Amino acid sequence: MTDAPLAPGAVIGILGGGQLGRMLSVAASRLGFSTHIYEPGANPPAGQVAARVTTAGYDDVEALRAFAETVDVITYEFENIPAEALDILEPLRPIRPNRKALKVSQDRLTEKAFLTDLGLRTAPFAAVDDDIDLAEALEEIGAPAILKTRRFGYDGKGQARIMSAEDAPQALADMAGAPSILEGFVTFSHEISVIAARGLSGDIACFDPGENMHEAGILRRTTVPARLSEAQRMDAVLLAAKILNALDYVGVMGVELFVTPQGLLVNEIAPRVHNSGHWTQNGCAVDQFEQHIRAVTGWPLADGQRHADVVMENLIGDDMDRVPDLARQPDTALHLYGKSEVKPGRKMGHVNRVIRAPR
Amino acid sequence: MTDAPLAPGAVIGILGGGQLGRMLSVAASRLGFSTHIYEPGANPPAGQVAARVTTAGYDDVEALRAFAETVDVITYEFENIPAEALDILEPLRPIRPNRKALKVSQDRLTEKAFLTDLGLRTAPFAAVDDDIDLAEALEEIGAPAILKTRRFGYDGKGQARIMSAEDAPQALADMAGAPSILEGFVTFSHEISVIAARGLSGDIACFDPGENMHEAGILRRTTVPARLSEAQRMDAVLLAAKILNALDYVGVMGVELFVTPQGLLVNEIAPRVHNSGHWTQNGCAVDQFEQHIRAVTGWPLADGQRHADVVMENLIGDDMDRVPDLARQPDTALHLYGKSEVKPGRKMGHVNRVIRAPR
Repeated sequence: MTDAPLAPGAVIGILGGGQLGRMLSVAASRLGFSTHIYEPGANPPAGQVAARVTTAGYDDVEALRAFAETVDVITYEFENIPAEALDILEPLRPIRPNRKALKVSQDRLTEKAFLTDLGLRTAPFAAVDDDIDLAEALEEIGAPAILKTRRFGYDGKGQARIMSAEDAPQALADMAGAPSILEGFVTFSHEISVIAARGLSGDIACFDPGENMHEAGILRRTTVPARLSEAQRMDAVLLAAKILNALDYVGVMGVELFVTPQGLLVNEIAPRVHNSGHWTQNGCAVDQFEQHIRAVTGWPLADGQRHADVVMENLIGDDMDRVPDLARQPDTALHLYGKSEVKPGRKMGHVNRVIRAPR
Repeated sequence: MTDAPLAPGAVIGILGGGQLGRMLSVAASRLGFSTHIYEPGANPPAGQVAARVTTAGYDDVEALRAFAETVDVITYEFENIPAEALDILEPLRPIRPNRKALKVSQDRLTEKAFLTDLGLRTAPFAAVDDDIDLAEALEEIGAPAILKTRRFGYDGKGQARIMSAEDAPQALADMAGAPSILEGFVTFSHEISVIAARGLSGDIACFDPGENMHEAGILRRTTVPARLSEAQRMDAVLLAAKILNALDYVGVMGVELFVTPQGLLVNEIAPRVHNSGHWTQNGCAVDQFEQHIRAVTGWPLADGQRHADVVMENLIGDDMDRVPDLARQPDTALHLYGKSEVKPGRKMGHVNRVIRAPR
């Protein structure tokens, strides 16, 4: 495959069949592409809107090879793809975003080191493998702080707060021996995220930053526009661009930032479409999902212009009970994920409230 | 099945796998439904974004029965469904919109008679089965006029213009013996359409009327808002509501109207989502496709509010060559249909240009 844009009719392989894969698949269809989903779990949400689904594990060499041979490009909806699977896929088809982005974002320590090497600011951090490391890290960073596993954490999982040194043994026990990182608390007024995209030709486009509100470690709401000065808005975008360029990145990335009196700090990056970018589905002509598809297929990026203000709210677990009421509210767009089972803390859907401009 | 709303997870059967079925399927997924497409042709556009596809003819009794048994409700993307197929499906699952709507709209003569019986105005018309009928009809209606087959016409097919009586024999020959209707010319300033919806409980919601521009008998462009006075806008909506109520209709209907100095005339009705309603995808929180799914599943209708002005343009045949350029234009949403073959006159996609409100 050259760097020429893929023509409509091409097939996009997506690793992961959750809601992000589902919305990527729908976006791909709008550009005339079809999709092939690779997912270990049965009946994945993305499979309901895809031309083809492979149900197989990431250790199934034959299934991975067969999958790669049916697609023109491979992308993914989550960052924790086993390196062994990527080793098999990489010689067969382009993987976008590239493996460097995955490597950096799969490990909180590698990620923070990458960001600080770039000259960007993060929360203070230190590697923690045992009780001696932890004692030293607490000495250096101070409490309160958060101990997190370096890998496989999401939505507040694999994390323990340390309010004072007495909490240290329990926090370390919670990590169950996994390599960890201690992160200092940051005093910030609010969190924002930049949904940034970089195309195959190196062009960059960012959506307007959204302001995030979390509950119990899970994103609850994103409001666009975020509370930011013009200078902060510019900073946020430049900072995101710096990250994407450094990674020679192709695709959409979610960049979470803390707004502090001393400037913007990077919280974390996700090498994929991001929950805090769901508002773009109803606020922009081209949403983050299509933007990602455009990038990985070599199409020109959209400029990210927003034609309406939006408040995105996640529907988590029993929030599904609110759907009949939400369906009656004006200017309210429901996006349900087709998951058969409701579980506490499980993202079941989201709702975008469009703020109409006064006429 | 009772009239209770279908819960997410339910399966919607869609007769017809073209672009309308495709966009209905995507909309259904947003509400957590999955879809089963029934389509005689291989590799239908809708199949790329559906959980299941049956490839079988409308005369395949076993396939129709098996299809019905997997779904909770049946809807369709086109009006020319053979009555025999409906006879098989109807005892098994609810068909929405109902058969009365299909019967009326499958035949131009039945449709015009239905509309005039309701007290609505149409172009003058007369049934034509032979040369004697045609001579009488021309005497009554006058030339210029258009001779059309009563059934199976779309996008300007099955039509012949009669500019003067000399054109009559050729026009009749063009109908190839099919029962026909002569329609008089109407002097109108422009054509609009109302995309109207009626829910299972009888509630009605209309999107803002769009203004249509045709080329070579095919819709080229729909602009919203249409040029209409407040009184005309009200008339258009009331008239559409009258039609839906008279049919005890459930679903979305496209109602094409001529704007004349003497008021609004009904051009034709389509018992389905309609090309002139595609703008709603980028102008409303809930588009015509989701509105239709809401109606046929017993959900509350959205109110049809528009948060942006939109110009929709169809991409027909070689217009596909313009896609790379269109992909670079701001505020422009592409919607391609995934059709493998480009043919002259074939609808390959459309583009919605969103008009951003000044800030």
